[in-house]
Amino acid sequence: MANYITPLRDMRFVYNELLDPEAIQALPGFEEISPDLVDALLEESGKFCEEQLQPLNRSGDEEGCHFENGNVTTPEGFKEAYKGFCEMGLNSLTSDPQYGGQGLPKTVAMLAEETMCGANFSFSLYPGLTAGAINSIELYGSEELKNTYLPNMVEGTWSGSMCLTEPHCGTDLGLCRTKAIVQDDNSYLVTGTKMFITAGEHDLTENIIHLVLARTPDAPEGIKGISLFIVPKLSINEDGTSGDANGVTCGSIEHKMGINASATCVMNFDDAKGYLVGKLNKGMEAMFVMMNNERLGVGIQGLGVAEASYQGAVEYARDRIQGRALTGAKKPADKADPILVHPDVRRMLLTQRALIEGNRALAAWVAFELDISHNHPDEKRRKQADDFIALMTPVVKAFMTDCGSEVSNIGMQVLGGHGYIRENGMEQYVRDARIAQIYEGTNGIQALDLLGRKMPAHFGRNMRPFFHAVRNYIYEKEMNYELKEFLIPLAKAFGRLQKITAVLAQRGMKNPDEIGMASTDYLRMLALVALAHQWMRMAEIGLQKNNGDDAMFYQAKIDTAKFYFERILPQTGALFATMMSGSKSTMSFNDDAF
Amino acid sequence: MANYITPLRDMRFVYNELLDPEAIQALPGFEEISPDLVDALLEESGKFCEEQLQPLNRSGDEEGCHFENGNVTTPEGFKEAYKGFCEMGLNSLTSDPQYGGQGLPKTVAMLAEETMCGANFSFSLYPGLTAGAINSIELYGSEELKNTYLPNMVEGTWSGSMCLTEPHCGTDLGLCRTKAIVQDDNSYLVTGTKMFITAGEHDLTENIIHLVLARTPDAPEGIKGISLFIVPKLSINEDGTSGDANGVTCGSIEHKMGINASATCVMNFDDAKGYLVGKLNKGMEAMFVMMNNERLGVGIQGLGVAEASYQGAVEYARDRIQGRALTGAKKPADKADPILVHPDVRRMLLTQRALIEGNRALAAWVAFELDISHNHPDEKRRKQADDFIALMTPVVKAFMTDCGSEVSNIGMQVLGGHGYIRENGMEQYVRDARIAQIYEGTNGIQALDLLGRKMPAHFGRNMRPFFHAVRNYIYEKEMNYELKEFLIPLAKAFGRLQKITAVLAQRGMKNPDEIGMASTDYLRMLALVALAHQWMRMAEIGLQKNNGDDAMFYQAKIDTAKFYFERILPQTGALFATMMSGSKSTMSFNDDAF
Repeated sequence: MANYITPLRDMRFVYNELLDPEAIQALPGFEEISPDLVDALLEESGKFCEEQLQPLNRSGDEEGCHFENGNVTTPEGFKEAYKGFCEMGLNSLTSDPQYGGQGLPKTVAMLAEETMCGANFSFSLYPGLTAGAINSIELYGSEELKNTYLPNMVEGTWSGSMCLTEPHCGTDLGLCRTKAIVQDDNSYLVTGTKMFITAGEHDLTENIIHLVLARTPDAPEGIKGISLFIVPKLSINEDGTSGDANGVTCGSIEHKMGINASATCVMNFDDAKGYLVGKLNKGMEAMFVMMNNERLGVGIQGLGVAEASYQGAVEYARDRIQGRALTGAKKPADKADPILVHPDVRRMLLTQRALIEGNRALAAWVAFELDISHNHPDEKRRKQADDFIALMTPVVKAFMTDCGSEVSNIGMQVLGGHGYIRENGMEQYVRDARIAQIYEGTNGIQALDLLGRKMPAHFGRNMRPFFHAVRNYIYEKEMNYELKEFLIPLAKAFGRLQKITAVLAQRGMKNPDEIGMASTDYLRMLALVALAHQWMRMAEIGLQKNNGDDAMFYQAKIDTAKFYFERILPQTGALFATMMSGSKSTMSFNDDAF
Repeated sequence: MANYITPLRDMRFVYNELLDPEAIQALPGFEEISPDLVDALLEESGKFCEEQLQPLNRSGDEEGCHFENGNVTTPEGFKEAYKGFCEMGLNSLTSDPQYGGQGLPKTVAMLAEETMCGANFSFSLYPGLTAGAINSIELYGSEELKNTYLPNMVEGTWSGSMCLTEPHCGTDLGLCRTKAIVQDDNSYLVTGTKMFITAGEHDLTENIIHLVLARTPDAPEGIKGISLFIVPKLSINEDGTSGDANGVTCGSIEHKMGINASATCVMNFDDAKGYLVGKLNKGMEAMFVMMNNERLGVGIQGLGVAEASYQGAVEYARDRIQGRALTGAKKPADKADPILVHPDVRRMLLTQRALIEGNRALAAWVAFELDISHNHPDEKRRKQADDFIALMTPVVKAFMTDCGSEVSNIGMQVLGGHGYIRENGMEQYVRDARIAQIYEGTNGIQALDLLGRKMPAHFGRNMRPFFHAVRNYIYEKEMNYELKEFLIPLAKAFGRLQKITAVLAQRGMKNPDEIGMASTDYLRMLALVALAHQWMRMAEIGLQKNNGDDAMFYQAKIDTAKFYFERILPQTGALFATMMSGSKSTMSFNDDAF
């Protein structure tokens, strides 16, 4: 049975050694965020996740959510855990202190979130969706809406949901049919059916605040006619308490491959009273702000589940006695050696490590830039951070969730037949991780967002902060002999990335199918180069410190970096070749021949 | 909801056009196997699978097997389906006519088996394991054992199981503790616990014939002291009917990620009466013959499930209306275009196709050589076929099951959120397919078998038939201008394969960890080259026939071949690079740092 432990040592490494904690503390609003405070917070929240959330992970998966007469009951223990979670303030790490939030940097919150997902993916979705809803209201809601909804949502007494998808539309929200009709008091009556609504209905909170995409009768067609509305499950009384039911009902819950303890609901709105958030017909804009925030969060889900799977695999590889090392018995007194002696098992574990630690480093960089983009005093610097985030959001969402599935499948494979058995917990990681490649925009859509939208926008402006950072780092280390084994392949892969970027930019102008065709491979290549950059930086720190205390930790960084450069980065060569081949044979394939 | 249809057109192509049906008919014993007969058989068995097995696939997954007081009940409908299945003789396609079998070539049976797995993976395991058991008894059993057991097993009134794994040993069967103590009548009393026993107990047949690995008290340690025993669930009366219970009980069944309708049992043997199969202490040999046969079958499972997933994905991609083609609306009168217009969706579908059809062709070649190895009059030709099969068995098992997972995950991704919902059936393919990478020897073990055992054996003799076939084909087509776009990359990838084979052979002699480290990548590279060879052959046929009737079918072969060469084969470049990097950084990683 898997036993997840917060990877505190590596989180500290990322926060204190790879990033610059002083730069975070220097940002207005974060003056009190000292490394010691961050450390204490990660330790405490980690402990809560290990002790309170993790024990509910398997039982929640087996029990699932219950649906009866429109009511959804979460699995046993979820209510109590949610109460404790909110009491510790874990539900409001980054929320505005004005409404009762902790006001922490995203960089810190991201690390805490990883632990929540690692300990209990399904559970993390209840506060996760609320955070997204809070975010939208903070950014786009009127003062009245903020004052009415945020205090209870930040406290956790009310939760939030995001109602986008309808049975006939997911990716293409322009097809949305849910109607909103304005009333004399400037409120709206919202009518329609939404599906795949995470935490649309449940028993954890007194009220649920739905953020609903809908169109007014005279709205323009397509996505230009979509508006965003707040629709509470229970109406809000004059005194701010929850009142009567508001025409919102849960029609059913889905039976899914995984995240069984998370209620995925069909939500029916029937003349439900709602309130416009932001401007009329500008709902997609507000939605995208929220979704961009969510997308980093979804990437983190992939990371959390991957770490949990890795830990389970390592434990098994140490304990399972089977066969002998190829070079001769390692434990001749025992009947067999632990399977950790086998190169192929080590290859699997190091693949997991290299992807997990590389992704943690990359995600932390993106979170750090998010903090910059919100809190830095210099507008130019904020703008630059915005550009970087625009580029990296689809990369983090898609690549880190692809890795979530890849890594959790590897973990399961390490256990062999035992990995396929439910009670050992490893197959649940695979089933849970799988959704993250799909929701909040499938990974194919992320790739198209990257290459079709972010790459060409403003003549490539979004690309610059990342490309310049890698290029400058390569120049800076050019004379460092110790780093040569990393520098040369990084420079080579980066060169390939630059070249294919130029090729695709040109081809895309003539034929947009060239962009669509290359997008998934391009996203992966960019991510692999970004991880190589992070791994070289981590190796650099490792080389400086592998003689002192904790030498083993730093040596492992160097060795894992070597593994990454030798065994994973070469994929960029194949990706370059496939992208160069273009879209012709795929697009000319006869539709009827499929 | 997925609706599987037997891919008859492509099966006919493989059997009649890619292979040589006359060469099969020329083999002694197969004189009556005309293409028309094969065609009728595939059509009929396909119809049965579509109409009788497929409807039980989802319901069987939801219901699962039931365990009560040592009895296992299969899901509703399985008993009736099994009866019909045996009445049609589908359970005994390749069995010896002497015992009531159909005596069909493996090449034909393999295609029929694909359909069974595509329609209902779990169901196919009940007759599948019986076939393996029959195979062992046919090859190693005494005349008495054959006459006692085979007629009822071939008829399907009795089923079979293979009892290898124990709680503390799976891969390393030398650790097996189950005991067999000889009795005065030369029978044995078998005592021990076996786990992960597919179809160890169920309600489909009157009796279950277990083939059990065990050791006698004075047997040598390790795998040299393992013997194989027949242990029937019910003793056999003098008149050949099933009699009293025989000390074999089912202790429990596993709850698994998938194949829920297949009973995976813990089997307890308590002084159960058994009979030696083959020679004492030579059980592993008999087991390997059976397992090699099973391993091709497991590869076919990956193929069947992949085809089913592909069909579901194509159907959805045609029907789902969402967004617009990047090059402008394809169906301007509708609100949106089908998602089939998107390059990334087509990329996913063509990846599925290229892997499925390539694997079908490769598996058919292996099955054909199996027929040769059993029935060809010339011993030298039989020996050559044996060598080819020895090499290709691990490749087919591991690569085709890796593709089973890869392809079914792609299929699920095409459906987006709808793919994650159980009722749509696509996620079941992913869960079912996953086991095939694990059982009958994990894919890591297959890779080690290929590179550590098959490659060096007899100075590379096993490699020759495959390497020569590819080399000769390349020489033969060297001057064919039309095939140039396939020939050049095939020759290049083949060159890489030859080179890395030589490098690894040399390195492996000095350090066996070099073999273990490269094995998984090597197996994939060899499989990718083997598929390239098949795809070039298929493209060649396509080019000859793409102007006649059925032009679309042949043109699709050419186009899919192009896709394979452009988009999948380039992986061999990256694999070459990773293998060249050797084992040093992986093996020197500190065990305690994991």
